[in-house]
Amino acid sequence: MVSYEPVRGMKDYYGEELYKIKAVENAFIKTVKLAGYQEVETPILEEFELFALKGGEELRNTMYVFKDKAEREVALRPEFTPSIVRFYLNSLQHLPKPIRLYYIGTVYRYDEPQFGRYREFRQAGIELLGSSNILSDIEILQIITEIYRELNLIDKIRIKINNISLVRKILTKLNLDDRSQEHFLHLVDKNKINDALSMLPSSEYTELIRSILEVRKLDDLSYSKIKEEIEEKYKLNDLVQDLNQIITIRNIITEFGVEAYIDLGFVRGLAYYTGLIFEVLHPSVSFSIAGGGRYDNLVELYGGSPTPAIGFAIGVERTALVLDNLAKKENQPKIGVFVLSDNAISYAIKIIDMLRQNNYITTINLKSASVTKLIPSYAEEGYSFLIFIGKKEFEEKSVTLKNLRTKEQVTIKEDRLVEYLKQII
Amino acid sequence: MVSYEPVRGMKDYYGEELYKIKAVENAFIKTVKLAGYQEVETPILEEFELFALKGGEELRNTMYVFKDKAEREVALRPEFTPSIVRFYLNSLQHLPKPIRLYYIGTVYRYDEPQFGRYREFRQAGIELLGSSNILSDIEILQIITEIYRELNLIDKIRIKINNISLVRKILTKLNLDDRSQEHFLHLVDKNKINDALSMLPSSEYTELIRSILEVRKLDDLSYSKIKEEIEEKYKLNDLVQDLNQIITIRNIITEFGVEAYIDLGFVRGLAYYTGLIFEVLHPSVSFSIAGGGRYDNLVELYGGSPTPAIGFAIGVERTALVLDNLAKKENQPKIGVFVLSDNAISYAIKIIDMLRQNNYITTINLKSASVTKLIPSYAEEGYSFLIFIGKKEFEEKSVTLKNLRTKEQVTIKEDRLVEYLKQII
Repeated sequence: MVSYEPVRGMKDYYGEELYKIKAVENAFIKTVKLAGYQEVETPILEEFELFALKGGEELRNTMYVFKDKAEREVALRPEFTPSIVRFYLNSLQHLPKPIRLYYIGTVYRYDEPQFGRYREFRQAGIELLGSSNILSDIEILQIITEIYRELNLIDKIRIKINNISLVRKILTKLNLDDRSQEHFLHLVDKNKINDALSMLPSSEYTELIRSILEVRKLDDLSYSKIKEEIEEKYKLNDLVQDLNQIITIRNIITEFGVEAYIDLGFVRGLAYYTGLIFEVLHPSVSFSIAGGGRYDNLVELYGGSPTPAIGFAIGVERTALVLDNLAKKENQPKIGVFVLSDNAISYAIKIIDMLRQNNYITTINLKSASVTKLIPSYAEEGYSFLIFIGKKEFEEKSVTLKNLRTKEQVTIKEDRLVEYLKQII
Repeated sequence: MVSYEPVRGMKDYYGEELYKIKAVENAFIKTVKLAGYQEVETPILEEFELFALKGGEELRNTMYVFKDKAEREVALRPEFTPSIVRFYLNSLQHLPKPIRLYYIGTVYRYDEPQFGRYREFRQAGIELLGSSNILSDIEILQIITEIYRELNLIDKIRIKINNISLVRKILTKLNLDDRSQEHFLHLVDKNKINDALSMLPSSEYTELIRSILEVRKLDDLSYSKIKEEIEEKYKLNDLVQDLNQIITIRNIITEFGVEAYIDLGFVRGLAYYTGLIFEVLHPSVSFSIAGGGRYDNLVELYGGSPTPAIGFAIGVERTALVLDNLAKKENQPKIGVFVLSDNAISYAIKIIDMLRQNNYITTINLKSASVTKLIPSYAEEGYSFLIFIGKKEFEEKSVTLKNLRTKEQVTIKEDRLVEYLKQII
């Protein structure tokens, strides 16, 4: 016998839980449209190679990969960015830059299922292609802030930011190739800092990297210390610029009215980030609820011309988890229609049509018990009115309307029904 | 190198094509909500067994099936109904009947790709569980009609209907088991009527089935002929009832203002249908654009208690294909904001925020060319206004606004900007 549960790690959504997911998606869509972003929908199934190229170790190990009937190695997308970049390269390269795109959909990761982490989950995100201007970093952070403001979460979230190019530039000075940098950052992400540092050739820079990674919240004191070290001891003036840039960004997003802090030890699981990275945190959960960053080399890696880019993805279910109860449910009145004579079916259908066109949720009664027995069950299911249509009503072009709250019952001509309902609701 | 094309048989959606898909989905959602249906979202990945049980031969042969890391045999859903029934059995059995559910999402079939048939495509559908009342057949057909009315396609579509129980009852009299009935109907669906009939034990009923299947459009003449044959020659009076019921249904949906006809030779690919079946056709395409039917045994087959049910699914892309150009695009004015002084960034962000809150699509300029060069490109991209914010504007709490249509340029105080825009747009 087939199991009634979804496949392990997957979940069905319905009712309040689904309303919250829709609330998150709607806040996202409204905000990104007003910021000039255009939707893209790409397939869930992509060539495995698309993600293998630069997904990061963890991602590669947790992908759903299989061969289709033509022996193509395909994967269920573990994230959207590679698909959006592929689409850009296939279809949008000729357009003036920057290009602003958004997406919503499910992604797949074969992880151990746990609270807030399913194997199928929803992401809603944007990609801004073709600008390395600091204003594009700010644009992206402004948008993510606006989404959480729209969701009434702005006072509760914190945004953690970093500029990954600080550490990357030192690793490059140490001649670490891309693959090794990726592994180094993966270890740091897993909190294995000593393992990461032991990868490095013995050099004076090792201590600098350690000092940087240890600053989990940059303040005036730690800033002065790091700045002095970089400038005086290591003479790496371009790093000071990177440091100042992330401070500028923090200051501006703080002005949006959201708490933001710089964590120099923060890296993200995806291997393609090159500059600004950020995550949105909420005090009631231990995982991030959204995140993103700059990936200036990915388009080129896929064979396109150099195209700086930045984006983020919101964890839809994770954001829905921290959402307060929805302030206001849709409270459209519901009307149940009883057809009490076979001859009246077409007439009743016409009445139902008219009610729906006037925005009343209207159903035809399909229950077989007697009307007297059914009235309480309709009241329980949240119906406000019942309408009875029998032979008499059909012939007179009227309906009998019962108000389930007041228990009043009246007979009204068909052409006065909507007007009457509008008056009493 | 990774290919920029989607995987064979899949498609990226963007721009006008995606707007049409959203228009179809929105018409669907609006209509089914007003008819009292509740949304469900189930996973794309399900146990293979769920679909293998009763999907029909063609479906089973064209599924994406693979083993996950724990050796579970899983499939990308080829349709929604089995998942919705599984969810009902898992979570909603205790609720009063009938239960009205709707869904939207992608399904997967490994077919030869061709016009209007991709390997990933979208379905939007409903399931009405727990009623065998003829009114539930009518409810379903009313809803599908309303959706196509909402899409302005009501004058172009035709609905083809049949009552599959006519043929099924005769096959049962011939002692054909479920699996053989399924194969028989599959052959009829493939237009191999002689092959189908040759499966049957030699019997007087073979000719009756042939007569029935040959009536591709039931009219008064063919009705009298079939009715007489059934009643006089075969004495199968319950079949006359089935025949009359489908005529009643046709007459009622014709009253909705849609062309409908009865095709007694029409069967559908899915093996679980037991009664009313229907498809929506459009003259400009050779395939159906929506379809559904009654499946009174499926819930029981999955181990639930006997629960009659009926539903339909709209082919979202197929319906979008026959949609006329969208009557009216969203025509929200677009505004581009130029920040001409680094000190003014925060001030500019505040202005942008204010404009978006007033429903103007607003972007910050990220292009690096000179303003003079950029003005024509903004006009081309459909922007209505540009706003310039330099040192002077920042200090004066004003903005300089350029109307790209009239070429007029004015400087306005920040707190009068929205009011001014509302007047001139």
